[in-house]
Amino acid sequence: MIHKVYFTPGPSQTFYTLPDHMKSAFNENVMSISHRGTAFQSIFAETRQNLKLLLGVPDNFDIYFLSSANEIWERIIQNLVANHSHHFVNGSFSEKFFQFSQDYKKNSTKHNVDYGQDFTDFVIPESAELISVTLNETSIGYGFDLSKLKELRTNYPDKLIALDGVSAFPSVPLDFNLIDTAYFSIQKCFGLPSGLGVWIVNQKCFNKNESLKKANIITGSYHDLNELKLMGDKNQTPETPNTLAIYLLGKVAGDMLNRGVKSIHNDTIYKASILYDALDKSKTLSPFISTKVNRSKTIIVANCAQGNKELLQKMDAKGWVVGKGYGKFNDDHIRIANFPTHSKEIIEQMADFIAQET
Amino acid sequence: MIHKVYFTPGPSQTFYTLPDHMKSAFNENVMSISHRGTAFQSIFAETRQNLKLLLGVPDNFDIYFLSSANEIWERIIQNLVANHSHHFVNGSFSEKFFQFSQDYKKNSTKHNVDYGQDFTDFVIPESAELISVTLNETSIGYGFDLSKLKELRTNYPDKLIALDGVSAFPSVPLDFNLIDTAYFSIQKCFGLPSGLGVWIVNQKCFNKNESLKKANIITGSYHDLNELKLMGDKNQTPETPNTLAIYLLGKVAGDMLNRGVKSIHNDTIYKASILYDALDKSKTLSPFISTKVNRSKTIIVANCAQGNKELLQKMDAKGWVVGKGYGKFNDDHIRIANFPTHSKEIIEQMADFIAQET
Repeated sequence: MIHKVYFTPGPSQTFYTLPDHMKSAFNENVMSISHRGTAFQSIFAETRQNLKLLLGVPDNFDIYFLSSANEIWERIIQNLVANHSHHFVNGSFSEKFFQFSQDYKKNSTKHNVDYGQDFTDFVIPESAELISVTLNETSIGYGFDLSKLKELRTNYPDKLIALDGVSAFPSVPLDFNLIDTAYFSIQKCFGLPSGLGVWIVNQKCFNKNESLKKANIITGSYHDLNELKLMGDKNQTPETPNTLAIYLLGKVAGDMLNRGVKSIHNDTIYKASILYDALDKSKTLSPFISTKVNRSKTIIVANCAQGNKELLQKMDAKGWVVGKGYGKFNDDHIRIANFPTHSKEIIEQMADFIAQET
Repeated sequence: MIHKVYFTPGPSQTFYTLPDHMKSAFNENVMSISHRGTAFQSIFAETRQNLKLLLGVPDNFDIYFLSSANEIWERIIQNLVANHSHHFVNGSFSEKFFQFSQDYKKNSTKHNVDYGQDFTDFVIPESAELISVTLNETSIGYGFDLSKLKELRTNYPDKLIALDGVSAFPSVPLDFNLIDTAYFSIQKCFGLPSGLGVWIVNQKCFNKNESLKKANIITGSYHDLNELKLMGDKNQTPETPNTLAIYLLGKVAGDMLNRGVKSIHNDTIYKASILYDALDKSKTLSPFISTKVNRSKTIIVANCAQGNKELLQKMDAKGWVVGKGYGKFNDDHIRIANFPTHSKEIIEQMADFIAQET
């Protein structure tokens, strides 16, 4: 049997220390301990602390553990939006978040451009309470321009800014002063089993949540932001959570701290640049995102002039599992994940293959 | 180091085949596969099928995977209750579910008796759309009388009956014709890591959900019942789910099928009866639930005349981790789980200890 390497955009190749941490989880009875006991509280606190250090989360932010980024979209709409959120949409996931606001019958708006195209309008409607920005659109490999995020923060200091950090954190650095809430799931850059979403919120979010409650708006139940805080302050969760995932996330975040945050950022840039260079040399593949500053560092998306079918088979024969295109690009794109667990060596091999054989 | 045995009411001792299935999960790349691919669809279908056989779920029911029983409480309120649910409450968990209906500002009612006391009133308000019954109240070890469930079904054929199967399934058998929806989490009788809730619904639930939509009521977003069905019909989930847990649940359900459903039910009764016999012989411990038919088979709760502190220490020294009381009974109760992974031998040792040394 050939060892496979997953370059899929998530779930993806698991972080290389995962098997060891799983063994420790068994030895430490992590799957049996009570979520109301001190052993759990230590795990919760350690994972929070390691994430704070790894992501550079300031002290005025709190971290909560939910079940997926999808759930966090829903909790943001329930807890932080009375009437109107404004969404930057140029891919399937930012579109899906906007759809959640419709499901909850909000009067939300979107700045909608064609998938993968650059945004042109950074003026936000006055009644919008929250601005949704996707740092890294996993569906088409689009990275939001951080200088534009700065512009939004400067121009709209009173609105909440919600940042989707899925498939970006911790590979892409972020100044948390530019945002009020951010979230991600762990099956992307962290290389962990799916089933956990991480929600980061500041005091402005708690204030907003309180104002919704005062206006008699339904803000959910066990994962109402206030419930999360009441239990989180005790290093606990409202429900019996995915304890194993919280434990594994803390351990892998610790491994990443040992490797060094700066080193992870730099490696990500290096590996992304050799992949984009290879795409420039390819005869049949080309980067889907034309504007260089908006090319994702972690999800490299290429257009395949001859479709992706044969190419994916060829890659599979080498043991490389690469992502298909998302949604309408299913047959025409490939998506290559560049996460911390993907070594320079394997990315160099991938780059050589792309430059020489496609 | 002494091997510990967890008798806690969940998370609890893990099922003894778990380490092997975890190894297989690594070998089969379960944590890396796409949740939109055929490998995932096979896992989803296998787990559904094994659960159907194990629990005796008729074909007119569908099975969905969510993140916890807490989440399913919320989804039931959002998806199946326009105005009014009626709750049988005599413990912390049935009370919590009722609280969710209040969080969603429903005009719900409860038949509330003191914790652990028997219900006396089985007349349901006319406007109630859904009746909530807790088969096994984990907080105080109360089992709902199945003859009363039958009575409810006969008297109220048009109302939905929602059954909380947490810490009961698959150890306690249920005739699914008596209910319309049921749910459980996997860290109890299945001995699996927490982080997955299983929701079972019949056609009446889909019809009810449709009527709520027609009345312009918000029914949620990605875990709206209709979304779950659209994706579930493709053996998929709306979001990236806890794939590992779905896989492990299917495998352990398979192991339980190999052992035999009837054998699991019988073993549960045998082990419960020797524990209750031991409590009768104890000088300081006594069953908290007085009515025999309502004594839980899976969560044996004892009142400790001298408090639980020293007893729990004594048990801990033997390597036995036993549950404290829940909520206000924190210091006065012990709770002993009797799940399929707890062998006859270890339960007999526990019973001998209780009869002779307490």
